Amino acid sequence: MKKFTSIKDCPQPQKLIEKALHYKQNPYSNLGEKKTLGLVFFNPSLRTRLSTQKAAYNLGMNVLVINVSTDGWQIEMEDGAIMNQGTQEHIKEAIKVVSAYCDIIGVRTFAKLQNLAEDGEEKVLQQFLKYADVPVISLESTSLHPLQSLADLVSIAETKISKPKVVLSWAPHPKALPHAVANSFLEWIKSTDAEVTVCHPEGYELNPMYTAGLTISHSQESAFKNADFIYCKSWSSSKEYGSHIPVKGNWMIDQQKMALGNNTKFMHCLPIRRNVVASDEVIDHSMVYQQAANRLWAAQAVLSEILES
Amino acid sequence: MKKFTSIKDCPQPQKLIEKALHYKQNPYSNLGEKKTLGLVFFNPSLRTRLSTQKAAYNLGMNVLVINVSTDGWQIEMEDGAIMNQGTQEHIKEAIKVVSAYCDIIGVRTFAKLQNLAEDGEEKVLQQFLKYADVPVISLESTSLHPLQSLADLVSIAETKISKPKVVLSWAPHPKALPHAVANSFLEWIKSTDAEVTVCHPEGYELNPMYTAGLTISHSQESAFKNADFIYCKSWSSSKEYGSHIPVKGNWMIDQQKMALGNNTKFMHCLPIRRNVVASDEVIDHSMVYQQAANRLWAAQAVLSEILES
Amino acid sequence: MKKFTSIKDCPQPQKLIEKALHYKQNPYSNLGEKKTLGLVFFNPSLRTRLSTQKAAYNLGMNVLVINVSTDGWQIEMEDGAIMNQGTQEHIKEAIKVVSAYCDIIGVRTFAKLQNLAEDGEEKVLQQFLKYADVPVISLESTSLHPLQSLADLVSIAETKISKPKVVLSWAPHPKALPHAVANSFLEWIKSTDAEVTVCHPEGYELNPMYTAGLTISHSQESAFKNADFIYCKSWSSSKEYGSHIPVKGNWMIDQQKMALGNNTKFMHCLPIRRNVVASDEVIDHSMVYQQAANRLWAAQAVLSEILES
Repeated sequence: MKKFTSIKDCPQPQKLIEKALHYKQNPYSNLGEKKTLGLVFFNPSLRTRLSTQKAAYNLGMNVLVINVSTDGWQIEMEDGAIMNQGTQEHIKEAIKVVSAYCDIIGVRTFAKLQNLAEDGEEKVLQQFLKYADVPVISLESTSLHPLQSLADLVSIAETKISKPKVVLSWAPHPKALPHAVANSFLEWIKSTDAEVTVCHPEGYELNPMYTAGLTISHSQESAFKNADFIYCKSWSSSKEYGSHIPVKGNWMIDQQKMALGNNTKFMHCLPIRRNVVASDEVIDHSMVYQQAANRLWAAQAVLSEILES
Repeated sequence: MKKFTSIKDCPQPQKLIEKALHYKQNPYSNLGEKKTLGLVFFNPSLRTRLSTQKAAYNLGMNVLVINVSTDGWQIEMEDGAIMNQGTQEHIKEAIKVVSAYCDIIGVRTFAKLQNLAEDGEEKVLQQFLKYADVPVISLESTSLHPLQSLADLVSIAETKISKPKVVLSWAPHPKALPHAVANSFLEWIKSTDAEVTVCHPEGYELNPMYTAGLTISHSQESAFKNADFIYCKSWSSSKEYGSHIPVKGNWMIDQQKMALGNNTKFMHCLPIRRNVVASDEVIDHSMVYQQAANRLWAAQAVLSEILES
Repeated sequence: MKKFTSIKDCPQPQKLIEKALHYKQNPYSNLGEKKTLGLVFFNPSLRTRLSTQKAAYNLGMNVLVINVSTDGWQIEMEDGAIMNQGTQEHIKEAIKVVSAYCDIIGVRTFAKLQNLAEDGEEKVLQQFLKYADVPVISLESTSLHPLQSLADLVSIAETKISKPKVVLSWAPHPKALPHAVANSFLEWIKSTDAEVTVCHPEGYELNPMYTAGLTISHSQESAFKNADFIYCKSWSSSKEYGSHIPVKGNWMIDQQKMALGNNTKFMHCLPIRRNVVASDEVIDHSMVYQQAANRLWAAQAVLSEILES
């Protein structure tokens, strides 16, 4: 594996899941000795920051962390820019320099939520792929979050439920959020034997690139029937991208809705707004901590695949 | 030792002091190999940040550092909160997630200085103790700072003065400060053979839980007579908690006051406001750097006790 | 070598260059095992931050990073200050404390650009040299940037051009910048067999301490003729220190100007304002990434010299 930005970079997703489960049983290796992982954060991060560092340490790697907004220089993103304003360093230089000191680079860059097509272009991530002289890992990009999705699939695999019914459900949130986690989960869950339904209010359609072939529902009540897993996530309206258009009814997930399913397990990538996205009771009896813990093994599997290749 | 939040967590404080002194002579061990220490800072830190990291490295541990205000998400502290405002992640999730990647967690959280009883409840620290699946170390909490106190006792032990007269003296400061260092020093010094006096202006009483049985003085001139150690610290008034009520006379510690004692040694936890809390001359001929250096060995002793248990 | 703040600290600069080139071929050593490098940043840093950490890791060292403005306390710089205002910790304590936990300290502190003579005094760096109990490395100071200069000389050495003609040229910039990189480059390049010209508009004279004996030109057109290397850097006017006084003509470096030389190589320390300091084409066909990559080996050579002594 030469990069990790989408399931498309993984010839055998199932093997990656198995590798993660292997590391969960056997955490330590010296595969990464004398290698350095550089982590570049354009946006906040807790799980990703910590799990990826810890995964690197488990493999014997060193880690360099760069918080772009506080540690270094203001970054210019536009090619050909005349840099006589606030930006101090062009992304091209920043990437080439980081890649001079690292063996693998991870980068986190969120959607701007101003223009759906533009966010789909993955401008920053593409710059990393273009200019880095070393393999690049997405730590969440504008349209995908593959390390999260891999951890999600590891968590589902641990339940040993075969051919599960999985519902990806939109949920309310005070802020409009990126589509990355939702898109990415669909990319990955489609590679399994799960039966997948996407459930959201009208006007919140995800990119058909990700939903093609899946059942779409506009009712949690009907979608949740017999569900084994409800993967919950808020995302921005696509009709008015970057906003929350009004939604009919109550979309917060509570115990009553969970009871519609089949001993249904609640999943979420975290962070989660308690009692807005889902109720305390739902979160407290969910798989969210298992998913977060599996972020470590997912990251370790990905790093080791790249180190081996 | 399963946690380290107060002297009450240490069955044998004297053994911990000896352990710190042992590490000062023999710094390196592989006791912590493949183990990870997570350090969570809700507040600024220099000594604690560096000494605890270095202690972990001396033991062969890896370290993950989280600066809550800049690295991750805005944290919700209230149970049952409807999170539709500014906070993005509940403390419960944050702790569970950090504890999934670490073998020991350290946390620093300062008093809010709005309500004395509330600060005494140690709300944040208690959440860590409740939700973390791994041992928790206080890197200073709202009412105690045990790593500092252990280093202080190590420093006093190094002088080999038996049955010393120790004065904890309030001092002026432009800001109202927490009681944690003062409370904690009293908890620890009471476990030794020292004769202890607490000296402060009226209205600056510490919690009787910590001062019970000790001599209280309102005059530095009389309290400092024959003192072997003056441990100086400013703290907020307790009468008007979170404020500085007016104080009669000059409470800054200078050489003239130091001369009242018995070759008296000046102690302070740092950072210190020079020429406000104490004069340059007093600080420059004090034990403050020895105390700071001993923070390393104190932290290493505590980490090793926890790793061994 | 007991410190590294200027070429004056290096008895044999040529040996240091060879050492850097040696590490470029043989990166790993256990020379620094169980040793800790403390990096104190008063100012932003990307290359220096990462290359110095990576150099330490290559030598087996641990690293502690302190970002002064976000991690710790507000620092008081004045001796004798009555600290009843915003500053919380005196630089003396901060340095003594960091040096208690580290075997080598690196410090970055930029010029204030208010008073040329004051910036020349290197007040902060001198405090580190005065109070640190361990060797100090400059990660760029108010008037010099020796790690950059060493990397620059390593890069020139790699071209194997003997007796090169080297031009240090001023360039435009939206902000007034320190003289450190320019001064330092002159200190170091003068130790080689290069023929050196300094080219800048009138009113932008560098300190004669650094330019004495060198050819001064006020015309890029004439200075660039037959140049092998053009080292480009913007710096503040010296006539109106901290400002940019008006400049006649266009000083941005473009391909046309580069063509005046002898297959001329463009050098810059980065970060660079594209299409202001130099055009995209010039930067894209330059040595800037080689220079940045050599920062690692320069830092490693310096750390190892200090560890060995």
